[in-house]
Amino acid sequence: CYLHSMSLSSGPPPPNSQSSNAVATEDSSSKETDALVHFLRGAPPTSGASQGQLDSLHQPSGAIHPASLPVTSLVSGVNRNQHQSKPGGGNYSAFSEASSTAVAGAPAASGGPLGASDEEMIDLTPGQDNPFRDPFGAQSAALSQHRRETATAMGNLGGGRRRSSSGGDDFVDLGGANPIDANEAAGLAEGHYNDFETIDWLKDIGRHRKRHREILRRMKLSCRGKLVSLFDSFSGWLCVGLIAVAAGLVAGVVDIGTTWMSDLRDGICAEAFWFNKEQCCWSSNDTTFDDEQACRQWYTWAELVGDSNKDFGAYIFKYLLYILWSLLFALLAALLVKVFAPYACGSGIPEMKTILSGFVIRGYLGKWTLLIKSVGIMLAVSAGLNLGKEGPMVHMAACCGNIIAYLFPKYGRNEAKKREVLSAAAAAGVSIAFGAPLGGVLFSLEEASYYFPLKTLWRSFFCSMVAASVLKLVNPFGNDHLVLFYVEYRSTWSVIEIGPFILLGVIGGLFGAGFIRANVWICRIRKFGRLGRFPIAEVMLVTLVTALLAFPNTYTRMNTSRLIKLLFSKCGPEDEAELCDYKWNSTNDYSGSAPAGPGIYSAMWKLMLAYLFKMVATVFTFGIKVPSGLFIPSLAVGAIAGRVLGNVLEQVAVSRMDSFPFRLFCRAGQPCINSGLYAMIGAAAALGGVTRMTLSLVAIMLELTGGLQYIVPLMIAAMTSKWVGDRLTKGGIYEEHIRLNGYPYLDNKEEFAHTTIAADVMHPRRGEAQLQLLYQDSMNVEDLETLMAASDVNGYPVVVSRDSHYLLGFVTRRDLMLALEFARKNEDGIVGDSLVYFTEHLVAGAVAARHTDAGASSTDGQPPALKLRRIVDLSPITVTDQTPMEVVLEMFRKLGLRQTLVTHNGRLLGLITKKDVLRHIEYLHSIDPHNLIFS
Amino acid sequence: CYLHSMSLSSGPPPPNSQSSNAVATEDSSSKETDALVHFLRGAPPTSGASQGQLDSLHQPSGAIHPASLPVTSLVSGVNRNQHQSKPGGGNYSAFSEASSTAVAGAPAASGGPLGASDEEMIDLTPGQDNPFRDPFGAQSAALSQHRRETATAMGNLGGGRRRSSSGGDDFVDLGGANPIDANEAAGLAEGHYNDFETIDWLKDIGRHRKRHREILRRMKLSCRGKLVSLFDSFSGWLCVGLIAVAAGLVAGVVDIGTTWMSDLRDGICAEAFWFNKEQCCWSSNDTTFDDEQACRQWYTWAELVGDSNKDFGAYIFKYLLYILWSLLFALLAALLVKVFAPYACGSGIPEMKTILSGFVIRGYLGKWTLLIKSVGIMLAVSAGLNLGKEGPMVHMAACCGNIIAYLFPKYGRNEAKKREVLSAAAAAGVSIAFGAPLGGVLFSLEEASYYFPLKTLWRSFFCSMVAASVLKLVNPFGNDHLVLFYVEYRSTWSVIEIGPFILLGVIGGLFGAGFIRANVWICRIRKFGRLGRFPIAEVMLVTLVTALLAFPNTYTRMNTSRLIKLLFSKCGPEDEAELCDYKWNSTNDYSGSAPAGPGIYSAMWKLMLAYLFKMVATVFTFGIKVPSGLFIPSLAVGAIAGRVLGNVLEQVAVSRMDSFPFRLFCRAGQPCINSGLYAMIGAAAALGGVTRMTLSLVAIMLELTGGLQYIVPLMIAAMTSKWVGDRLTKGGIYEEHIRLNGYPYLDNKEEFAHTTIAADVMHPRRGEAQLQLLYQDSMNVEDLETLMAASDVNGYPVVVSRDSHYLLGFVTRRDLMLALEFARKNEDGIVGDSLVYFTEHLVAGAVAARHTDAGASSTDGQPPALKLRRIVDLSPITVTDQTPMEVVLEMFRKLGLRQTLVTHNGRLLGLITKKDVLRHIEYLHSIDPHNLIFS
Repeated sequence: CYLHSMSLSSGPPPPNSQSSNAVATEDSSSKETDALVHFLRGAPPTSGASQGQLDSLHQPSGAIHPASLPVTSLVSGVNRNQHQSKPGGGNYSAFSEASSTAVAGAPAASGGPLGASDEEMIDLTPGQDNPFRDPFGAQSAALSQHRRETATAMGNLGGGRRRSSSGGDDFVDLGGANPIDANEAAGLAEGHYNDFETIDWLKDIGRHRKRHREILRRMKLSCRGKLVSLFDSFSGWLCVGLIAVAAGLVAGVVDIGTTWMSDLRDGICAEAFWFNKEQCCWSSNDTTFDDEQACRQWYTWAELVGDSNKDFGAYIFKYLLYILWSLLFALLAALLVKVFAPYACGSGIPEMKTILSGFVIRGYLGKWTLLIKSVGIMLAVSAGLNLGKEGPMVHMAACCGNIIAYLFPKYGRNEAKKREVLSAAAAAGVSIAFGAPLGGVLFSLEEASYYFPLKTLWRSFFCSMVAASVLKLVNPFGNDHLVLFYVEYRSTWSVIEIGPFILLGVIGGLFGAGFIRANVWICRIRKFGRLGRFPIAEVMLVTLVTALLAFPNTYTRMNTSRLIKLLFSKCGPEDEAELCDYKWNSTNDYSGSAPAGPGIYSAMWKLMLAYLFKMVATVFTFGIKVPSGLFIPSLAVGAIAGRVLGNVLEQVAVSRMDSFPFRLFCRAGQPCINSGLYAMIGAAAALGGVTRMTLSLVAIMLELTGGLQYIVPLMIAAMTSKWVGDRLTKGGIYEEHIRLNGYPYLDNKEEFAHTTIAADVMHPRRGEAQLQLLYQDSMNVEDLETLMAASDVNGYPVVVSRDSHYLLGFVTRRDLMLALEFARKNEDGIVGDSLVYFTEHLVAGAVAARHTDAGASSTDGQPPALKLRRIVDLSPITVTDQTPMEVVLEMFRKLGLRQTLVTHNGRLLGLITKKDVLRHIEYLHSIDPHNLIFS
Repeated sequence: CYLHSMSLSSGPPPPNSQSSNAVATEDSSSKETDALVHFLRGAPPTSGASQGQLDSLHQPSGAIHPASLPVTSLVSGVNRNQHQSKPGGGNYSAFSEASSTAVAGAPAASGGPLGASDEEMIDLTPGQDNPFRDPFGAQSAALSQHRRETATAMGNLGGGRRRSSSGGDDFVDLGGANPIDANEAAGLAEGHYNDFETIDWLKDIGRHRKRHREILRRMKLSCRGKLVSLFDSFSGWLCVGLIAVAAGLVAGVVDIGTTWMSDLRDGICAEAFWFNKEQCCWSSNDTTFDDEQACRQWYTWAELVGDSNKDFGAYIFKYLLYILWSLLFALLAALLVKVFAPYACGSGIPEMKTILSGFVIRGYLGKWTLLIKSVGIMLAVSAGLNLGKEGPMVHMAACCGNIIAYLFPKYGRNEAKKREVLSAAAAAGVSIAFGAPLGGVLFSLEEASYYFPLKTLWRSFFCSMVAASVLKLVNPFGNDHLVLFYVEYRSTWSVIEIGPFILLGVIGGLFGAGFIRANVWICRIRKFGRLGRFPIAEVMLVTLVTALLAFPNTYTRMNTSRLIKLLFSKCGPEDEAELCDYKWNSTNDYSGSAPAGPGIYSAMWKLMLAYLFKMVATVFTFGIKVPSGLFIPSLAVGAIAGRVLGNVLEQVAVSRMDSFPFRLFCRAGQPCINSGLYAMIGAAAALGGVTRMTLSLVAIMLELTGGLQYIVPLMIAAMTSKWVGDRLTKGGIYEEHIRLNGYPYLDNKEEFAHTTIAADVMHPRRGEAQLQLLYQDSMNVEDLETLMAASDVNGYPVVVSRDSHYLLGFVTRRDLMLALEFARKNEDGIVGDSLVYFTEHLVAGAVAARHTDAGASSTDGQPPALKLRRIVDLSPITVTDQTPMEVVLEMFRKLGLRQTLVTHNGRLLGLITKKDVLRHIEYLHSIDPHNLIFS
């Protein structure tokens, strides 16, 4: 399930790269939220060959590139591919099939092969529009509406600088002398990002604090202000509370729907068709319910058509029906996803991680995604595919979070703050998926979130707790337990058993690494090969094969959750299942440590087959175009391995009770080795191997099973499987999928062990042309317009003058464009020749110097100057050119930067964007695959 | 228990401030690790009056202040107070009683009252020595040894810059051309900090990575290198593993010792005096053991002296003995602490937090502290004081961590890396204290640690796990459970009970806030008043009163842990304790929901008295000069409140079973309200109120009790009590103690809501003199020596020239001093007149200009220049003067900075140290007490 083809590597030139100098005006101003805009970039004819692989990492984080480069292969135009996921459109799976390319921007030399040749193109279309006109026209049209929306909002960018400057510097504050200017700035300051853009945490948080201060100020002024302030204060808690309630309700509906639909494959309740089998049996007062022993009100399809339930024909009929229902459900799920919400496929966790790390993907957490994902996951699970609904529940909870956040301007309008809420929602997602509120918080902390301050921890905690409470009220399992696979036994474990637990950890780690490799391999084929073009056929094929193979084996036919529950449980003498076929005698009345009967041997063989089947099927299933989670299949695979190992050890122990290792902890008539516990440990190990979670995994497993005394074994298994797995693949399945899809995710788990410095990474490199700069007081409006037309970078550093590049600040392209537009229209006397000042204090002689420079306009009769100091960010984050990249990386990670400016002795040298950092890491990995394995 | 008087507020001038211009040479080069060095600073005669309050926040993080200030009240000398905690010394509690002041350094004008007047003096003495000689002599003597130690180590500072500079800048790399220079730099680069210094995380981590790279490089060269590399790779895990084992063993010893000593107050085992009562009864084959029902081998003291065990005289005898034993134990504990390890007092968690946040307190985690704390806590708990051994166990585990880290150069020699290990050790501490490995990790994450990357999470996890396993092997409680207060019941709770749970949360929050206020008030008196001068008398008094009041009440007399266990447990019909005196009838055979008998009423009264007693006693106890933890007393207080509330509700429910709220979830013959559960929730709420933990609290409570199904109630209680508590006091008890003691701790939980900018905080302020700067190529050796002699700041920014203050880099005083010393001695031709270059490329004309400037030396016959580029940190972190303080704060917190340089248009304006930031926050709080209450 791919969002977008984002590749960091330097790919081949796309087939249409010769059109890159043309200015196309393909206008398709659809408001479709899921529309994808591709940005091609002109890649140098150096490496790679696979046709159609678009090299379009889309990260418009302020790269600054000159318009006319003599040596590098810059394509200064913007190539855009707009795919619309309209119902019935043929480009469903073809997120990477860029076909129509629109190129805007000025011509540029796309000449020599020198230089690093990785340039980013910046989307300048605002908000949720995707219009594609002449940049200037489109901008002004779209943004004027945008400005109306936000003109009344919360101060302006300049306000941040309107501080009481007691430092004694020479900035004179002109305050809000010009109301038009202030309004304009208000429009500029609003921190809306475009689709596929990286957010700037520091600025967003700053904006939030400014807003907060404004509210505090108003609080002191009026009664209404007080109310607003009170509401605003509690809105964080209220927001996560509402999210939790919504997520809990959604989870309840999905849980109930899934069991009902799963049972629908078997039969229907005569009394009330909306009951699932369990409820049906309850209502007909049958106390037990079992696959074999149907209750009176429940009619299997075979029974309904009048067939007997026992003979071979009925088996075939059931088999066929099983397959047909599976195919039907799978088809429905795939169609829904394809037609209504392509973002609903997959588990959503890699994308969640990317979004939480500060990337904007519009519509990914929208209402359609939520709706389709909810319905789709019910269908997909009911189709008997090897997938779970737990991963998607995290995505669904995040959708709830996103939708509800829009009710609160504090969160809806601030991407950084919204991510705090989304972190909490992710916690609630795991909380409802597993009934594990603590595990949810830890999952959010360890796996999902990026920026996790303590306040978010508390919010997540609250959200998780409320969601669990709501789910407990809904009570979808009807058992008053939040715990999914509650284990009843409380037997202790022996320290000697640590050996087998470590072995299970190793098995889990190997499984995880193998799974990741195989799955990524298949997904790569799916993505770049022909397989990806027939997603629905693929879903149907996988479903068919799964159903065909799953039905004959009891353990694969049954619901995966039920299988896990069965494997986790401990046999008592009263159990009659095949797995509990022990040769009990009178002395060991309760223990599992009895010789095995034939049932166990047969069960072992079936389980081993199930192991292979589930392993392979899951590899193929994860990534098809239906909603799909990995938790339950991984747990099942691990549980089978653990159960088998446990049973083998148990039998060895029974037969050799008096020999070395066993005599230390086994006594006749006492339970010796609990194979249910081994299943639990094995499950944890497998899930750990696949996802590489540790702390959160243990917490989830504890809450899932209630086996608190097994915390140390669980920790051992989780730790071992992570260790083993990390030796074999670089990251968990989510990281690998992020890498596969080329999302701009700066992993904060990796260590950077190289010796490069900022000067090695920044642009422009040696030989590249200078950055495009703004000079604080020597440019006129025309210069600026020319500059902007000549390039598509999304920001410009402001320096003192053409001769001395001492850094003053940074201006985003968007702000500059809006300001110029506004000035041209609304301010009298602003013409192309008007000087633009990015500073308040005019350097003596600067004006004169400029005139000497230009040698054109006369000194008097000068048009009024345009003062744009407001739009300058006077506090850009800078590093020196000698700063080690590890420090730069830390700053990017910890401070959530979009870009940083590189200086040398106060002089601006260049600029590093998040994408530069990512590409640099990728490059270093490719030249030095010897990573720090053992560090 | 105060480490040091560190106050951020601007205090009165100390009585001896007139001596600040004298150069004293008090030499006391004792190697006592616990010796405290005080740095007085000359405070302006502005505010405050309380005599003896030394205003000595000690944070030498690179403040740069001019030597001769006409306007500010700088005292450029270093005033040092060296207290030695020698046995029998009179300054035991007088950490704040600075009496002898040694002032070194050059005279300076300590003139006008203008300016912020908060300057930091920097300790330049290296390592663990505390010699006090003339700075230069001391330096050279101590550091030459130091240099020998480290000369062979891991490259040099310059190596970090010796990168393959592909950025095309104009730095020519001279490599290791000068071996002497390289060796010298090696000595310089070693990142040792002095006592009470703030560490620089970024630099330390950089140093670590450099070391790592060096090892990787050597790995490729030789076989030994490979071995070293392998060892180094695993040393992290090995180190935390060893720490875990050590901590587990220490905990086992302390647990066993505590029970034995506690029982010693009652009597002694005849069979083997080293058995505690429980073991004694076991060994004599008595299956039950109870306070009333003594087993045969156990003799109480009354029995031993031949007295009968029942009459009034025996009671008095027991009472007296109880008091005497208590006094004896308390005296021993206090004396041990006073004589051998003053740092062993208190819980140690506030100091741990400070240390983990990047502060150096030598000896705080040393072997003496460990030893004395272990013994002291056994004695203090056995003395029956209202304190627990759980908090100190965290400190003890951290001591183990610190000691073992010294075995691994990777951690022992790098303060930042050591803190990673210490974080893991803190996790192990909680793990062993409560048998809560998961809770330990979360405690370390939420409460203790500051800088907690994911790798540390995994290490902590491992450490926690191993420690728990070791403790399980030691099995000090003899019950195979890691769980301390294991609850047997598995009754579910009703959603309606959320009401009382919230009430318990409120009670806990109120208790917590009240406790914190009262305790801080008393500690303040203890610290600044006369109370603090008689610490042992205070301990004895508290013990006497505690023993006197505790004995008559059964619930206060018993061991606090046992009380908690009793309160948490659920009454069954077979229970005969007073608390379970229900009027059972035949129909409710198992339930607790029966009418109460007289025993319960009496127990309720006693419990309420115990509540009051424990509350008050704990307030007085926490802070006396013995090791003392807060967890268990808080839990006990909360458990009492919860149990009482639970019992009251239960009785209401029993009598009104059919009326509104109860009929929804109570049924006759079924258990209705489980007062044990209420005790558990109440305990969590009280602990939450005191410490303000949330996530870790819930995890600890879960693991402590095993009541996994009560996770949501526990979460509710924790959240509520935090909410309520946060409305009333600003932080938890640890934060308050940190504030009380004035530790330089930058709280990462607080939000900064002010509008100040970097220019408002930096030094020099408006009116203050310029910073002391180094010029890249226009100073000679003599200039530098004069500069250093004139001031005591610990670092100097390097700028381009006297006229243009464009920032080049930063040099620490220590590096500069060593480099000059070395050059004077070892390099030929270096004289006072030698030019010093901090740059490699000589700016054309700079030399000539300088000569014109100085007008003294001739152009030829010039002594050879000294090149010191190696010691220049070319990548200082900078911010612009307009950067909002919230951003600066984020950078300090997230990047672990010591200082940042403030620039404007590339020009150096000033400098902000961590202390400046702390003081600024303190100042803003003082002028605007309206904090963000509801945000």
